Amino acid sequence: MIVDTLIEKIIEKQNPTCVGLDTALEYLPPDMQNELNAISKNANKSALADARFYHLASQLVYKFNCGIIDKIADIVPAVKVQIAYYEELGHAGVMAFEKTIKYAKKMGMIVITDAKRNDIGATATRYANAFIGRNYETDIIFPRADFPSDFLTVNGYLGSDGITPFVEQCKKHDKGIFVLVKTSNPSSGELQNLKLEDGRTVYECMGDMVERWGEGTHGKYGYSCVGAVVGATYPEEAKVLRARLPHTFFLVPGYGAQGANAEMLKNCFDNNGLGGVVNNSRGVLCAYRKRGGTYDEAARAACLDMRADLQNVLGAICAK
Amino acid sequence: MIVDTLIEKIIEKQNPTCVGLDTALEYLPPDMQNELNAISKNANKSALADARFYHLASQLVYKFNCGIIDKIADIVPAVKVQIAYYEELGHAGVMAFEKTIKYAKKMGMIVITDAKRNDIGATATRYANAFIGRNYETDIIFPRADFPSDFLTVNGYLGSDGITPFVEQCKKHDKGIFVLVKTSNPSSGELQNLKLEDGRTVYECMGDMVERWGEGTHGKYGYSCVGAVVGATYPEEAKVLRARLPHTFFLVPGYGAQGANAEMLKNCFDNNGLGGVVNNSRGVLCAYRKRGGTYDEAARAACLDMRADLQNVLGAICAK
Repeated sequence: MIVDTLIEKIIEKQNPTCVGLDTALEYLPPDMQNELNAISKNANKSALADARFYHLASQLVYKFNCGIIDKIADIVPAVKVQIAYYEELGHAGVMAFEKTIKYAKKMGMIVITDAKRNDIGATATRYANAFIGRNYETDIIFPRADFPSDFLTVNGYLGSDGITPFVEQCKKHDKGIFVLVKTSNPSSGELQNLKLEDGRTVYECMGDMVERWGEGTHGKYGYSCVGAVVGATYPEEAKVLRARLPHTFFLVPGYGAQGANAEMLKNCFDNNGLGGVVNNSRGVLCAYRKRGGTYDEAARAACLDMRADLQNVLGAICAK
Repeated sequence: MIVDTLIEKIIEKQNPTCVGLDTALEYLPPDMQNELNAISKNANKSALADARFYHLASQLVYKFNCGIIDKIADIVPAVKVQIAYYEELGHAGVMAFEKTIKYAKKMGMIVITDAKRNDIGATATRYANAFIGRNYETDIIFPRADFPSDFLTVNGYLGSDGITPFVEQCKKHDKGIFVLVKTSNPSSGELQNLKLEDGRTVYECMGDMVERWGEGTHGKYGYSCVGAVVGATYPEEAKVLRARLPHTFFLVPGYGAQGANAEMLKNCFDNNGLGGVVNNSRGVLCAYRKRGGTYDEAARAACLDMRADLQNVLGAICAK
């Protein structure tokens, strides 16, 4: 099961983290920026100049991502690829997204696509087909018409029939999903922390649904194919959820640029240091700005620091 | 303002509907199916055969969509393009999506992209850039690197800072969004109909946030650039929301294949027959199966029937 594979990679590398490939153009290092600037002065002036700009930009983003992946694949178990940064570049960007996730797979990494998809059942099936509808053949990098991810983030506002099509594909193709439960952003509490009549908060209610959606899909470490997104920026809520959802693996955003530190993350993990994977995006992609050197070497150094930071708090990660 | 433009087109055509271009491959008529079948026997056998299949499929979907648009542009004010059906075909499908919305714009239709995007602020900005980040130049059909829509559907589970970036782009580029409030699917009540401690339901609470997000963006008919998705399949909830959200324009799915009839839709509209736009997807795209004839002529006939059906219930639509 893919959640077991993820856990085993985390144990093997003693590193419960993933690197977020939220590759905004402004994160690219100076040499790539220069390449872009050379043609960007013509962008927005004609459709053709525009298309050229976005095609080059997408190629550079892909090249940047490959550089990062090459330097971290031996120490980091997974990448989280945030599709919004690729959609911003139009269909050329979507191609860069597709190539990025295929390259990460080829390099042996687990791929989490962060797309927060959601819709009614018939349409949710289409999203599930697109992202988790097939197994990936590791020998194929040639662009093909799907976005083969190991995990996909989804939004559960529509209830069970918007989630079931994803869970069915998880079972069929050995994939996983992470449902938004308590998100890391400042205003997440506006809806998620409201109290329901029955005493639960909205995020607890969503968490309970997640635990239920995962029933019958538990792997050997006790976690199911239906995980939850739980922001590191809300350690109290994370503590509540960790206790409440014993079979739910957490995808944990918010470390680094969003303000959460390792101590705050502790609540997302069980006593064995398992139960979650922590994402860092900007802190890794832009590490070269603080550290100097090449962007890829700086990214690796940032990943090693993050691992050490978490190890300080979590200790050795082991199987139950 | 775009919401005023939509309303004026609705009044001009006396037709408060949009056609959902949820163009699944299985909806294509027999001659297109035959073209696909001729090469689909090789799909899944190699990456190249696969890519060829999805490229042809995407071309056929675009051709099909153009056929529909050509036949309905004079009687229907808007199309709603559901991006999941295009993502299912990979990056070639995304290109077909992009070309479809540009063609619909060229033919004078309002474009609603149904993508239900959502994320934390920094990332929401990227989605906003992709879909509502620029004005559209009507003379450009050449593929360029964005998905220029007039309206975008979004999911508000993350609260204000996940919505504000969209609203900012709406103000800047004269665009609109529709936030999921009460969705049309069978299990939408699992979360949305739960009662909060303060007596409101979750969908009422989301509706109240929508009304607030739209403040200061009202057009001349009183509606703001922040609309709501309210399923026709829940007429009681629609009635509550119509009264509660006087400045919120509704995008109303659920008519036809999902089971709602014209009488159920009445609650989504104000006394002038304004306040909402009703979507029909399968009932139009697959009309040729029931009616015979070519798919595009059948689609037009289905649109005329739908308009008549709504006129029976709503009467003449007029400005306040």
